Amino acid sequence: MPRFEEKRETMSHNSFGHLFRVTTWGESHGPAIGCVIDGCPPGLPLTVERIQARLDQRRPGTSRFVTQRREPDKVQILSGVFEDDRSDGPRTTGTPISLMIENVDQRSKDYSSIRDRYRPGHADYTYEAKYGIRDYRGGGRSSARETASRVAAGAVAFTLLEAMCPQLTIEAALIGLGPHRIDPARTNWSTRHDNPFWCPDPVAAQEWEGVLDTIRKEGDSVGALIEVRASGVPVGLGAPIYGKMDADLAAALMSINAAKGVEIGAGFAMADGRGSDMVDTMHPGPDGPTFAPSGPDNINGGVLGGITTGQDLVARLAIKPTSSILKEVPSVTKDGDAVKVQTKGRHDPCVGIRGVPVAEAMMALVLADHLLRHRGQIGEGGL
Amino acid sequence: MPRFEEKRETMSHNSFGHLFRVTTWGESHGPAIGCVIDGCPPGLPLTVERIQARLDQRRPGTSRFVTQRREPDKVQILSGVFEDDRSDGPRTTGTPISLMIENVDQRSKDYSSIRDRYRPGHADYTYEAKYGIRDYRGGGRSSARETASRVAAGAVAFTLLEAMCPQLTIEAALIGLGPHRIDPARTNWSTRHDNPFWCPDPVAAQEWEGVLDTIRKEGDSVGALIEVRASGVPVGLGAPIYGKMDADLAAALMSINAAKGVEIGAGFAMADGRGSDMVDTMHPGPDGPTFAPSGPDNINGGVLGGITTGQDLVARLAIKPTSSILKEVPSVTKDGDAVKVQTKGRHDPCVGIRGVPVAEAMMALVLADHLLRHRGQIGEGGL
Amino acid sequence: MPRFEEKRETMSHNSFGHLFRVTTWGESHGPAIGCVIDGCPPGLPLTVERIQARLDQRRPGTSRFVTQRREPDKVQILSGVFEDDRSDGPRTTGTPISLMIENVDQRSKDYSSIRDRYRPGHADYTYEAKYGIRDYRGGGRSSARETASRVAAGAVAFTLLEAMCPQLTIEAALIGLGPHRIDPARTNWSTRHDNPFWCPDPVAAQEWEGVLDTIRKEGDSVGALIEVRASGVPVGLGAPIYGKMDADLAAALMSINAAKGVEIGAGFAMADGRGSDMVDTMHPGPDGPTFAPSGPDNINGGVLGGITTGQDLVARLAIKPTSSILKEVPSVTKDGDAVKVQTKGRHDPCVGIRGVPVAEAMMALVLADHLLRHRGQIGEGGL
Amino acid sequence: MPRFEEKRETMSHNSFGHLFRVTTWGESHGPAIGCVIDGCPPGLPLTVERIQARLDQRRPGTSRFVTQRREPDKVQILSGVFEDDRSDGPRTTGTPISLMIENVDQRSKDYSSIRDRYRPGHADYTYEAKYGIRDYRGGGRSSARETASRVAAGAVAFTLLEAMCPQLTIEAALIGLGPHRIDPARTNWSTRHDNPFWCPDPVAAQEWEGVLDTIRKEGDSVGALIEVRASGVPVGLGAPIYGKMDADLAAALMSINAAKGVEIGAGFAMADGRGSDMVDTMHPGPDGPTFAPSGPDNINGGVLGGITTGQDLVARLAIKPTSSILKEVPSVTKDGDAVKVQTKGRHDPCVGIRGVPVAEAMMALVLADHLLRHRGQIGEGGL
Repeated sequence: MPRFEEKRETMSHNSFGHLFRVTTWGESHGPAIGCVIDGCPPGLPLTVERIQARLDQRRPGTSRFVTQRREPDKVQILSGVFEDDRSDGPRTTGTPISLMIENVDQRSKDYSSIRDRYRPGHADYTYEAKYGIRDYRGGGRSSARETASRVAAGAVAFTLLEAMCPQLTIEAALIGLGPHRIDPARTNWSTRHDNPFWCPDPVAAQEWEGVLDTIRKEGDSVGALIEVRASGVPVGLGAPIYGKMDADLAAALMSINAAKGVEIGAGFAMADGRGSDMVDTMHPGPDGPTFAPSGPDNINGGVLGGITTGQDLVARLAIKPTSSILKEVPSVTKDGDAVKVQTKGRHDPCVGIRGVPVAEAMMALVLADHLLRHRGQIGEGGL
Repeated sequence: MPRFEEKRETMSHNSFGHLFRVTTWGESHGPAIGCVIDGCPPGLPLTVERIQARLDQRRPGTSRFVTQRREPDKVQILSGVFEDDRSDGPRTTGTPISLMIENVDQRSKDYSSIRDRYRPGHADYTYEAKYGIRDYRGGGRSSARETASRVAAGAVAFTLLEAMCPQLTIEAALIGLGPHRIDPARTNWSTRHDNPFWCPDPVAAQEWEGVLDTIRKEGDSVGALIEVRASGVPVGLGAPIYGKMDADLAAALMSINAAKGVEIGAGFAMADGRGSDMVDTMHPGPDGPTFAPSGPDNINGGVLGGITTGQDLVARLAIKPTSSILKEVPSVTKDGDAVKVQTKGRHDPCVGIRGVPVAEAMMALVLADHLLRHRGQIGEGGL
Repeated sequence: MPRFEEKRETMSHNSFGHLFRVTTWGESHGPAIGCVIDGCPPGLPLTVERIQARLDQRRPGTSRFVTQRREPDKVQILSGVFEDDRSDGPRTTGTPISLMIENVDQRSKDYSSIRDRYRPGHADYTYEAKYGIRDYRGGGRSSARETASRVAAGAVAFTLLEAMCPQLTIEAALIGLGPHRIDPARTNWSTRHDNPFWCPDPVAAQEWEGVLDTIRKEGDSVGALIEVRASGVPVGLGAPIYGKMDADLAAALMSINAAKGVEIGAGFAMADGRGSDMVDTMHPGPDGPTFAPSGPDNINGGVLGGITTGQDLVARLAIKPTSSILKEVPSVTKDGDAVKVQTKGRHDPCVGIRGVPVAEAMMALVLADHLLRHRGQIGEGGL
Repeated sequence: MPRFEEKRETMSHNSFGHLFRVTTWGESHGPAIGCVIDGCPPGLPLTVERIQARLDQRRPGTSRFVTQRREPDKVQILSGVFEDDRSDGPRTTGTPISLMIENVDQRSKDYSSIRDRYRPGHADYTYEAKYGIRDYRGGGRSSARETASRVAAGAVAFTLLEAMCPQLTIEAALIGLGPHRIDPARTNWSTRHDNPFWCPDPVAAQEWEGVLDTIRKEGDSVGALIEVRASGVPVGLGAPIYGKMDADLAAALMSINAAKGVEIGAGFAMADGRGSDMVDTMHPGPDGPTFAPSGPDNINGGVLGGITTGQDLVARLAIKPTSSILKEVPSVTKDGDAVKVQTKGRHDPCVGIRGVPVAEAMMALVLADHLLRHRGQIGEGGL
């Protein structure tokens, strides 16, 4: 084992947000995972049921298209809420909210197959290189299991957003499965709860079942494209220069496991266009300017100069195929020898599916933070 | 004028980086712009000439394809370096490095055309909505002129990188101008200094002259695609979870004016693929694992789990077309009336060109910060 | 209940430290309290027993001079350490260390006496004024129970210090109980474990038993003076200007419940003196300068310009008398009526006693943070 | 010269405050010093004259009791304010405010006497030990000249406080010169501007002239005691646990050059007392509770649980005697040889005098930051 001082990261990096600040902790196969939320305002109604409902959306085992691990992911609130006999229910007090999820599916299994070899596409090698030690059980801290803490914290952020900004909604959907895309003509976001993919196009959702069944049976995996959008966003959220709403969203979404690309509004298509086409025209409206609804609308994705315009805030996120596949992939052992790695087990054939509630949670965390940062009128009942 | 407490951003947001921390200041048409770099280690050789050389790459007026404003952008070092008669030249002392660039082309012109109307695609409306007051001269703080401070700070970061990690190089290039792309078969990055576009494909560079001349004469503008890559990157830079190298890069690049999308490695193409194809295989190498050099190489762009693998670090950035165009665009006045906005003046027909040295600077700032954060062996002469 | 957005603190404030960063959570009578330590290097040997041993020093009920509440304060490590069958024991992995202490003595008692009235000297009124809601059970978050989390985190910091800087020791002692002071001529710090006061003067410790018995029986309380010192401190820890070792220590110690004053080295006595007397003279030594050992030694308390000199680091801390006393004190109710408050229960007659291990923990946290911040040679086996 | 990576501070440490964030830069004998203020709200009236007026209070050469260096300390505003022909004067815009003071008294003198030897009581040795390089001219960054930037930034904080909280005032005074103290019976704070000491006791001020003349002529120096207090402070400023108002004040004041002790309210006297005596009793008042005005009033100094009570906020600060004295003091050279150091030049015989406006500035910075952090009603015209 290396001397501890030889290898490390100097900066603490398990917190997200500035004023609504979340610190997550826990390894995939340790006793528990959880988070601490510091900076949540007092007086918010907060129940364990609300958090649980969000967590259930991300839970393993909900369909044959996600991992079959059995993790009930039951959350506990350990601090930061208070209720007395005169209250109308538990409320936040402005003190840190500690949430914990016990790990129950940590089978005492044989890890010798991954202990000394690096799974390609995973963080095994880089963690080992950086820290000289790693908890290899289920990927330890690098496991996507950490995103359960994000969803739990996101549920608190949603509660804040509902109270401060009731008209605001955030929704994510799977708009691409591998090379397959939804058809905008058939898209209806309210249908995305009706299928196991969070797909807003019912026809595509039907087709994707067959596609993913095939991939799953082949022991392979596939990438995905997620869109996440917020409506009812107040004008003026976000800060110029290094606190831009779009830059913060990019970091938030890119920090999700397996994310490889982020775009805002028309995104990469903007690079191809002309200034005279790629413009959100402005028009007189009842409460300040409105933006042109026609053409490739909302070119800028609801942000100008890093600050929200009041249009929908739109981002898309590319998720790579799950790296854990049954097919053999060349790799090396810890000792530097060649080895073929084949990852058995209960893996997601398309990790992008369970990424949908995580993307929603990250956008909620970014908006909650910026809503607390911003001071100004945001319309009726607002700030 | 609104009461100051009614509208504001609570969080300071003009600093970038954690340990190598840069704070920029200054408006486009104020007396000066500049930055303070806090956290630069002592003992580094640092001359004003080195910083000036980087600034000159971003300077206006270097070709007919960039703005013709006359800004010599001469930088001064006001603190943080010291030389005595026994020194071999000025060296950093570990104290804050203050850099200043005086604004000389701030013509006392008539701003009445932009004072009370919002230029579409610009931050005029959002700044006004957020702050209730804005320095409208040349865009004030929202002007891309702020990126001169980034390039100056980036020059200090480059000096640090050269000293700590001499084998590391960072290069950016314009790989797309509007819908036109470079041809990989003709690409030679060493040629990118030979044309006004930072284009690594000499044939494309030749063709783009005609393309951009036409657009410029039409009073229109065009988007661009920038690639920025670092070679010789040590293994182990970056931190898991919320301090991921790719998430930090995404935020850094997305914070550049006009950026609308960022991808790492194969990026959005990853969403379309299968796990069995989209993999960087690992093989025994002389100093730890090597990654497969064939096929669509470096799928992951040099990062796994947020930590560098030792492969090239590769990112691409979509830049929207300059919003300032001669063509009339519908907009509104401050009072809410409809107006047609036409932006005369000396604007960049493709702001992506001058974005190339800015992208390099941002990657240098990210790597300098992570290099200072990381503790571990990075090979010969390293940390 | 007020609308949540009307009253709050914007900034998260439950974290301490920059690189060795501790976030504490939990209320006195909630389900549990705990902390998350982010930034602890990997490879450190860390057992629950080591943390428990420190916690036991602060535990209630160890003598008749501290509160008789029955809190076993059993700590659990929920994340951040790993042991496999080839390890020599559990080691930190560089991921966040989550510690939890369940609250077992949260009697379901009647809180109506404190629910609607403000205890003078406590934070009841100010929490209510700031947040509009408070968990009044046992003081909630403002209870000194929070310091158990500090001691737990401090135990991890001690583990780090021992590994990185084995010659460094930190010890605190009670050097004053009310107006009574220790006699330097009788002082022997190794005896401070032999009495219930952490008093380094055995004769004074004997006398203080009678003093405190009297005060306790009168239902009154008394203030205290704590000295905390570190020996074997490397030269060069601490940062100039706003990161000064002495400023950080001052903030750390002043953040302890009931603290009202902090001094470094000769402290307030320095204000009275002349420059020609108040000086640590410097002399040639085997490993750099040594400082004069005679006279009122270590005038500067081991810090010059905010950076450690290698001398002992010495601070003293004034602790006010416990505000919870049996004597009646005029106060007001939540509704603004006059009331007499008398605090029954199991309170510390001198809260300074249990403050001693807390002061040690805070100095350990400050030094651990600065040790990780500093890069340089610190002598044998050092950085 | 050492390799730069061998010795350094990892963490940037030249910024103060969280939301009202000040970064200072500059060396005593470099081209200029200055600061950047990030987070100042927009719409504040801010003129260079207001800042200059505060700076003039700290300026050298105002009496024979302070240093005779000739530094006019003329400040320039380089960014962050805007005025157009419809404005009623320059206003802040919410962007960073850059202030610069050129150094004009940087005589090209011979520094060989301090280049290679360490002045006892100064930071010469510790800077050298930490960084391996130092700008020895006039103390470089460790010089108290840096506090001019604090006073300039403090002037902006005062402007903010006046606008947000017009009833709030902050005043500091010298209440002790060496062993001499003011007599409370003669004290009138409005007289402190009438003498060169900022002494609120006119009789003492008269006596101190003779005392300090003697010390000055002997080539010696003397310590001082400063009191700084804020009146009209809103209830509810400050944050629990690690963001306590008193802890932040302690850090702010202890970061001033030559500070060795800080106390809040009755401070160290609290350690000596009984709980039944050391209490601020509470009584019904017109706008919430009032606190007992009799006895040793304001025992807690206006803070309970780290949050302001609405009472005056009171702190005292011990300043050590100027270390630069004409008398010879034993020291060592850079090469480790014994040497006698005698500091000639134009030094302050009591550096505490010029510390008075600095203490005011630091309290203004702390209160401005906490005022921006706090959200709640603060009375008429308030938040």
